[in-house]
Amino acid sequence: MAAKNGSEAAEEHTSSAEIRSFFDSAPPLKNSLEITDKLKEFLDKNSLSADAGDGRANRIVCVTSGGTTVPLEQRCVRYIDNFASGHRGAASTEYFLKAGYVVIFLYRRGTCQPYCRSLPADPFLECFEFIDESHIKVREPHSEAVKMAISDHQNVVEKGQLLKLPFTTIFEYLQMLQMVATSLRGLGPHAMFYLAAAVSDFYVPWKSMAEHKIQSGSGPLDMSLVQVPKMLAVLRKEWAPFAYCISFKLETDKNILLKKADMALSKYKMHVVVANELSTRNEEVVVVTGDEKVSVCRDKTQVGCDVEDPLIKLLVEKHAIHIVDSCS
Amino acid sequence: MAAKNGSEAAEEHTSSAEIRSFFDSAPPLKNSLEITDKLKEFLDKNSLSADAGDGRANRIVCVTSGGTTVPLEQRCVRYIDNFASGHRGAASTEYFLKAGYVVIFLYRRGTCQPYCRSLPADPFLECFEFIDESHIKVREPHSEAVKMAISDHQNVVEKGQLLKLPFTTIFEYLQMLQMVATSLRGLGPHAMFYLAAAVSDFYVPWKSMAEHKIQSGSGPLDMSLVQVPKMLAVLRKEWAPFAYCISFKLETDKNILLKKADMALSKYKMHVVVANELSTRNEEVVVVTGDEKVSVCRDKTQVGCDVEDPLIKLLVEKHAIHIVDSCS
Repeated sequence: MAAKNGSEAAEEHTSSAEIRSFFDSAPPLKNSLEITDKLKEFLDKNSLSADAGDGRANRIVCVTSGGTTVPLEQRCVRYIDNFASGHRGAASTEYFLKAGYVVIFLYRRGTCQPYCRSLPADPFLECFEFIDESHIKVREPHSEAVKMAISDHQNVVEKGQLLKLPFTTIFEYLQMLQMVATSLRGLGPHAMFYLAAAVSDFYVPWKSMAEHKIQSGSGPLDMSLVQVPKMLAVLRKEWAPFAYCISFKLETDKNILLKKADMALSKYKMHVVVANELSTRNEEVVVVTGDEKVSVCRDKTQVGCDVEDPLIKLLVEKHAIHIVDSCS
Repeated sequence: MAAKNGSEAAEEHTSSAEIRSFFDSAPPLKNSLEITDKLKEFLDKNSLSADAGDGRANRIVCVTSGGTTVPLEQRCVRYIDNFASGHRGAASTEYFLKAGYVVIFLYRRGTCQPYCRSLPADPFLECFEFIDESHIKVREPHSEAVKMAISDHQNVVEKGQLLKLPFTTIFEYLQMLQMVATSLRGLGPHAMFYLAAAVSDFYVPWKSMAEHKIQSGSGPLDMSLVQVPKMLAVLRKEWAPFAYCISFKLETDKNILLKKADMALSKYKMHVVVANELSTRNEEVVVVTGDEKVSVCRDKTQVGCDVEDPLIKLLVEKHAIHIVDSCS
């Protein structure tokens, strides 16, 4: 290992202190035992330690999806939220499953679910019609979408190829990501992290948070939030050092997007950063690696195609190379 | 009208300036024509200007439900949200419909819907099972809940007794509330406002809002939010001066709850303030009027009873008295 210069060492030191302080400050996960059990059962069922030998099986990806919240009060009435429909994560999950991966879908409660993307906003109330005591009918034009959503979703869950774990707050998300990462550690390069969740950048440390509801009526509200420590570096270095790691960079300002993607790549040692601009994110993304920047576009000539289809194909190829390189 | 002292006049002046500034700053509603049409059609269908004569019909309530968001960026990635499941509003809507009211349900997208309270978190994926190409089955133990939700909901929507209007931001909510209020103005005391939505207290004026995503990486984030002008006073005074108005006061600190409810009653000239504490809000509420404070509790001796059942019964009685008083 190369010697570190003073400022690098200092930065790492600050960073570990920030991370410790974040986790110390976080309210403990209520269902951590249940999550541990589910993860264990899921990995056992897929016998992910055995090598299937066909070069395609035996791969697992943790897809994170949707935004995290930052509570502003301990008895949470107000919180800061990050906009994210979860559409990217849900679509990508479908394509990873199609490519033979098993998927841990770490998603924000209430966001878009795999195989449910072509349903209306409130599918339960909009898609069904009451006929009589023993018959409910699917309303047109939703019948194909409903059948596909229910059967495809049921199929992958029942076969044990998809494990769904919901979160709400940044505290839940990062604790759960750590649990998933450490449980996948034994799979080395066969594990992938596809970090599409919109993770809060700023938070209010639990202990400095107002216990009661913030009172209005006394002028403007001034809030000071501290930065959430960048866990990507810890994920790469400690939690899952051999896994293939893909993070996302979303910006509304096109001019700074690729520069920020490059920074994320080098700072957090990601294998890939997927750069996307808010207004065109469903049409085009740029796959940024150390070597190149590849623009990936939705195939506009075919109906129903989305940008996640070619994106996941490309990432699956890159992951295969990573596995071969790591094992040689 | 009694003469106002200097400070009262000054307060009203500031208040109108704040309100003008809020509406001037708000991005215009994208679907305001559609909402106007829906409101007109709904009121026409229910012939709400005619007197049914039985003393029960001819009453309408606007139930607001769920929390509003405050965008922190114009191209909205981050926003402040208010926690609210919408359970209170959904339950109350059912009881108002049962009591013969027609209901305008002004609700936050994605929150709890009337007749859907006993369904699981993701009813679409959890309640149905794929059997074959032409059959989908309702999974037990959800079959009764599913049938009730779909048939009861369909029934009131098809009969034109329930109009659902969704919002997300504080800007949408207040503009829509104004539209509903002015359209109900002609119904005088027969209209009721049941304002159960958790409305943001602080906002960032649209014009002073960051155009692009707030950048992390440069230390803590300091935000200054200004107070949302209290629209309750304007609703009472200008938008719907004869309607019966009920607002809610939610606090986490029991010690200040009733005092704040009293303040809201006198400051905004509400007819009723329903006081509720976060931790016990599904068990007990206090109905605060100028004359008295009545505690209303869930009937614990009966299965499936909720606090909204006796609460709406009491409010319906009070509204009837308001109508008689206003017409005499």
